[in-house]
Amino acid sequence: MTADLPSTVHAESRDLVESVFQAVEGVAAAFPRARFLQRARERGNASELWQALVDAGLLAIGIPEERGGAGGGLTGNTAVMEALSRAGIPPLLYSLTSFSREAILKFGTEQQIQDHVLPTITGERKICFGVTEPEAGTNSFALRTIATPTPGGYRISGQKVFISGADEADHILLLARTAPPGERLSRTSGFGLFMVDLSLPGIHLNRLDIEWYAPENQFEVFFDEVEVPADALIGEDGMGFDYLLSSLNQERIVIAAWALGLGNYALEKAVSYAQVRAPFGTPIGANQAVQHPLALAKVEMEAARTMMYAGAAGYDSGTDAGHLANMAKLLGSRAALAAVEASIQTHGGSAFVYETDVITLWPMIRVLQIAPLNNESILNYISERMLGLPRS
Amino acid sequence: MTADLPSTVHAESRDLVESVFQAVEGVAAAFPRARFLQRARERGNASELWQALVDAGLLAIGIPEERGGAGGGLTGNTAVMEALSRAGIPPLLYSLTSFSREAILKFGTEQQIQDHVLPTITGERKICFGVTEPEAGTNSFALRTIATPTPGGYRISGQKVFISGADEADHILLLARTAPPGERLSRTSGFGLFMVDLSLPGIHLNRLDIEWYAPENQFEVFFDEVEVPADALIGEDGMGFDYLLSSLNQERIVIAAWALGLGNYALEKAVSYAQVRAPFGTPIGANQAVQHPLALAKVEMEAARTMMYAGAAGYDSGTDAGHLANMAKLLGSRAALAAVEASIQTHGGSAFVYETDVITLWPMIRVLQIAPLNNESILNYISERMLGLPRS
Amino acid sequence: MTADLPSTVHAESRDLVESVFQAVEGVAAAFPRARFLQRARERGNASELWQALVDAGLLAIGIPEERGGAGGGLTGNTAVMEALSRAGIPPLLYSLTSFSREAILKFGTEQQIQDHVLPTITGERKICFGVTEPEAGTNSFALRTIATPTPGGYRISGQKVFISGADEADHILLLARTAPPGERLSRTSGFGLFMVDLSLPGIHLNRLDIEWYAPENQFEVFFDEVEVPADALIGEDGMGFDYLLSSLNQERIVIAAWALGLGNYALEKAVSYAQVRAPFGTPIGANQAVQHPLALAKVEMEAARTMMYAGAAGYDSGTDAGHLANMAKLLGSRAALAAVEASIQTHGGSAFVYETDVITLWPMIRVLQIAPLNNESILNYISERMLGLPRS
Amino acid sequence: MTADLPSTVHAESRDLVESVFQAVEGVAAAFPRARFLQRARERGNASELWQALVDAGLLAIGIPEERGGAGGGLTGNTAVMEALSRAGIPPLLYSLTSFSREAILKFGTEQQIQDHVLPTITGERKICFGVTEPEAGTNSFALRTIATPTPGGYRISGQKVFISGADEADHILLLARTAPPGERLSRTSGFGLFMVDLSLPGIHLNRLDIEWYAPENQFEVFFDEVEVPADALIGEDGMGFDYLLSSLNQERIVIAAWALGLGNYALEKAVSYAQVRAPFGTPIGANQAVQHPLALAKVEMEAARTMMYAGAAGYDSGTDAGHLANMAKLLGSRAALAAVEASIQTHGGSAFVYETDVITLWPMIRVLQIAPLNNESILNYISERMLGLPRS
Repeated sequence: MTADLPSTVHAESRDLVESVFQAVEGVAAAFPRARFLQRARERGNASELWQALVDAGLLAIGIPEERGGAGGGLTGNTAVMEALSRAGIPPLLYSLTSFSREAILKFGTEQQIQDHVLPTITGERKICFGVTEPEAGTNSFALRTIATPTPGGYRISGQKVFISGADEADHILLLARTAPPGERLSRTSGFGLFMVDLSLPGIHLNRLDIEWYAPENQFEVFFDEVEVPADALIGEDGMGFDYLLSSLNQERIVIAAWALGLGNYALEKAVSYAQVRAPFGTPIGANQAVQHPLALAKVEMEAARTMMYAGAAGYDSGTDAGHLANMAKLLGSRAALAAVEASIQTHGGSAFVYETDVITLWPMIRVLQIAPLNNESILNYISERMLGLPRS
Repeated sequence: MTADLPSTVHAESRDLVESVFQAVEGVAAAFPRARFLQRARERGNASELWQALVDAGLLAIGIPEERGGAGGGLTGNTAVMEALSRAGIPPLLYSLTSFSREAILKFGTEQQIQDHVLPTITGERKICFGVTEPEAGTNSFALRTIATPTPGGYRISGQKVFISGADEADHILLLARTAPPGERLSRTSGFGLFMVDLSLPGIHLNRLDIEWYAPENQFEVFFDEVEVPADALIGEDGMGFDYLLSSLNQERIVIAAWALGLGNYALEKAVSYAQVRAPFGTPIGANQAVQHPLALAKVEMEAARTMMYAGAAGYDSGTDAGHLANMAKLLGSRAALAAVEASIQTHGGSAFVYETDVITLWPMIRVLQIAPLNNESILNYISERMLGLPRS
Repeated sequence: MTADLPSTVHAESRDLVESVFQAVEGVAAAFPRARFLQRARERGNASELWQALVDAGLLAIGIPEERGGAGGGLTGNTAVMEALSRAGIPPLLYSLTSFSREAILKFGTEQQIQDHVLPTITGERKICFGVTEPEAGTNSFALRTIATPTPGGYRISGQKVFISGADEADHILLLARTAPPGERLSRTSGFGLFMVDLSLPGIHLNRLDIEWYAPENQFEVFFDEVEVPADALIGEDGMGFDYLLSSLNQERIVIAAWALGLGNYALEKAVSYAQVRAPFGTPIGANQAVQHPLALAKVEMEAARTMMYAGAAGYDSGTDAGHLANMAKLLGSRAALAAVEASIQTHGGSAFVYETDVITLWPMIRVLQIAPLNNESILNYISERMLGLPRS
Repeated sequence: MTADLPSTVHAESRDLVESVFQAVEGVAAAFPRARFLQRARERGNASELWQALVDAGLLAIGIPEERGGAGGGLTGNTAVMEALSRAGIPPLLYSLTSFSREAILKFGTEQQIQDHVLPTITGERKICFGVTEPEAGTNSFALRTIATPTPGGYRISGQKVFISGADEADHILLLARTAPPGERLSRTSGFGLFMVDLSLPGIHLNRLDIEWYAPENQFEVFFDEVEVPADALIGEDGMGFDYLLSSLNQERIVIAAWALGLGNYALEKAVSYAQVRAPFGTPIGANQAVQHPLALAKVEMEAARTMMYAGAAGYDSGTDAGHLANMAKLLGSRAALAAVEASIQTHGGSAFVYETDVITLWPMIRVLQIAPLNNESILNYISERMLGLPRS
């Protein structure tokens, strides 16, 4: 695995990205793709992979040096996710942990950073993330998990779904409605963001039977009158949704890295196969029907990658990176899907054999067209915010 | 499940198709999609489903009445496969059995028909099918399984791959080279088609670890000096490949039915979901971004279906249905893929939950772009045979 | 030019289609594509082409024999339009004339048929068609042309746009609102359908500067208090829009024929070119990047064509052909566009030279994605009517 | 017109691009799109536009300051072309002139630079460009124009085609074979690059009848024993093709700018129209079927643009920009085509009216998928050079 960085990655980011890529080589050696697949198949977990990330110091990236981290910002997080994904070993939890830490770093107290962020560097603490509810889709109005103020803090009841790694995580960063029912709300007001200890009474997990290959499991998480202390609240009561929104650009860029890494992994397998598979004597890669879809996917991935690192650099420099982040997620997920599709078609029937490890890539890349935000919603965003068209 | 037959199905085929669709309703009641998925997941087999087909008299379809069957021709076979597939329960073996029976009916002796075809009507006999070899792809020159003449028949050695249902079948219809190595051959000459008893000594199976949902398993089948009697040969020695070619149009049409049935199943689930899922109050099906891909897939499936039944009618009337069969396979597999893709996107994250049964449809539809012949090869065929362009 | 009819055209229609194709060969000899282009370029008209159609007896097709025509129904009209279009000489007016005649035959009096339909057979009379208005798009509510009852008939004022052949036609079949302004209407009620003599005082034409190649011109037509007699009204006052709706399926099928014919013309040119153009020694048609798009377009055209003739046969047999007609228009226009796109790419730079006559085909095929109804509206129709999804 | 520069344009290029965009505003005021179209329609020329470029000092961009120019490099040329194209007034000759000047600056003598490059800054001299021949396509082996050494220089005979602006240009930069026929050549050896005065005896022009909107005309240029002096040769005899190859990356990036500018012009028109066109009361831009294709095209154009300026910056910094240039041309031309297609569909029937100026954009964007190198050839390049697949 080489970084293979065209000049599409800005010069100022290149050294950082290169060094992350080198560090990830060690992680991939310790926890190779075959192990990743095996853990996924046995519905295991990502703890070995996580330990390898700790050992390589990669969990310190994205936390400012003055806060005890290794710096690197979102560009660093993006490089970590991309490199792991290019090696075929993207941990779902990484995206969530980096996202959660960002929210606490931006809106939490010094004590909350000490308690919740720093232990993630050493692997003592993992954080999962809870927003989605069964009936709500992307409509925040429809969220029903409620946190009612109590003398000592809040009492939380409700249900979340598609919670990745809830069995491995120690805490969940949870969005819950704090405004009393009946109060008139805007789309984003009336929410609190809580760091909830998953070992508290009243929390139950139900593992979902998910059809993709990831070592982490997915859960429904039920909250039945869970009592949390007052300092579980991150930032101000009522601002939780705004805090989320302010971190979405971060998430979209990391998602792009995830997709593009896997797309690259799929593409490289296809190229290797097309160079040697030769039932008619010449390698099948000499056929335009084989090579052109691979080439087009490659170009589209490079374009998305350029946008992704430009977005990360923009975010790190404090400019509004919303347009770039949304474009990177859209382009990245689409290009990665084109790559894995071309890879499947190149491999022919053998793509469907588990050991070939091609079809095994598809569901994860496919779901990134949909989660955490589907590409149609991004097209809505671009129509309204970039083009100035009316809301659909 | 209704037949939902637009006038795209020729008037002369409509009654037959309708009656098959009704018969399949009983099969689907006895062996519903949930059971199908369960058997697939536990790497079981299709024996219950097969018995239900026998009980419904459906295995008699496609065998001429004067031969003891129920008639119906390829149109009947196509309707059986389509109806089963629309119900979400397409048996891999059905396509293979109908294909194998056709070859024996056309080229076998009266005794071979008695021995091998008639017992399939009652379910006493299942036939699997062996052509593909690991290194050969679609290049017949590269096939290496050899049948050497012996005093009592032939001695067969070699290896086949992607053999569906080899554990359930009693016999395999096997293509093997009979010409001595070194003899100069054309692309198709020098092959024999053999009906080989799978319980013979020297045959070993290795189950492949396949990533799709079908009750039947896939195997590598090894032949190590397997002695078969002289009457295992179907038709003339040297003509085996020609026999295959003459049945390919039949296969392509049945494959189209398989794909279109599953595509329809996926589409109907999406429509039902889009009619009721309403996180923002109005059903998501009112969004053009949701409904247009579904509508386009629907239209493309209807067009492919029209071509498919036209091809079946052409085959049954003895005209050369090659163009229609190839077009039906290409259009059918592509349209079905568009349908399942739109269904996934409509279902959002829930598509990836096993119980939703959407993502579970995708691999089988996807492989039908590739097997038994990939769509690029069909485009080659159309370029050369229909357009008169030079060979690529 | 041969009919090249695969068995996708139902057996019962094949003889009719064949004979029409033969008759059109004579028309194409008398008025070849080169003349068509020349007339288009000089903003001429289609009168010579029309005369050739008269001479070949083709304008009698689609009028029942008992009414003095040659029969053939919509299948006949479709074959005429397809054959002319395959020869590169599709007259815009043919589609309009056949559409207008159909409305009069169905809803007009015996006298109106005598006056308006029969003279079209001999070419004495041409009819153009006026529905579209500048601000209305596909919204009938927004139509503003008004016919006010007078003692002797109606007084018509308003404006129509995109009226093809208004300079050549003798009459226009005009949709105008007859209900008094302010009266509450449903979407379709309150319209009259009028056969208006274009030589009447108060009618003014303004030729539009249109960027496609057709011998007929397009016009804005202004009606300034035009007095028409009572018998200009076809059928009942108030039913005009319903009459139109009842003829739309006819129109969509003829549009499909128009598109598919031109697509076929473009494809054949590409195939001929790809067979001989060989800057590297072998013909470029041997490249998969050249041949596969042509092959795919061919298959999609055949599928659309099958749907088109099935729809025509359904219409002629009196069944509701709405689904088939809409699907045929959608598939036909899309497939034809794929064909002309592939033809352009095959021809390379030479496609843009007028004499090559490839780029000259594109605008007309392109507009058929939009007119008379855009393909997005057809997807809406299919979503609602075929899939049962809510209105978008 | 605003520069609308997202952070996708590298910080170091942004000021230059901004200042070019401002300068072009003046050019567009002096020679607006309407004039451009009018000149194109009357088969005029681009002389007024050229003068406006001179007046704005824009022809000095791309020539090093130490050579008497304004500097700016390829980034500057790209910005000029993009800005002109975004204003709807891209001069064909600009791309050719900048390309030709680059070759002379890199390989010519000081005297040749004085004679041929500097006069282009003041508009005294225009240079057109001659490589393509009727039978050669992209195969240099097939080029037949020959320059035979004479005592005083060379005698040139042959034919070139698709020569833009040959009537306006004073000289043509001409590729001709100098090796004697029969000599064994590699693909690139044996050519000379000549600066030929178009007023010399033996040169004849034949205007082609081209179907796109550009003020410049296209020509076949015939060379019949044209005597040129020895100093017409640029650089070394035998190296002409290598010189061309070394400038191709420059050309591809300028082509991307051309396409993207026009695509942006088409997109902006569509957005403006979709914001106000409202036959049903709400603007059509609120329909996802309208807005999503526009949004996707916008994102794809931004991605291509990022690649384009990255490529220009790479070229200017002396790194090998081949991958970036090829990717930018491929992505830029495709994205621009998506934009104009979406714009046509948004405008409906009115897109086909000359005054609407939408369909008038299409042929030029379409030809940029093909010229100067078709996108399939770029996919070949990427397959071989970036992916390491065998030659197709």
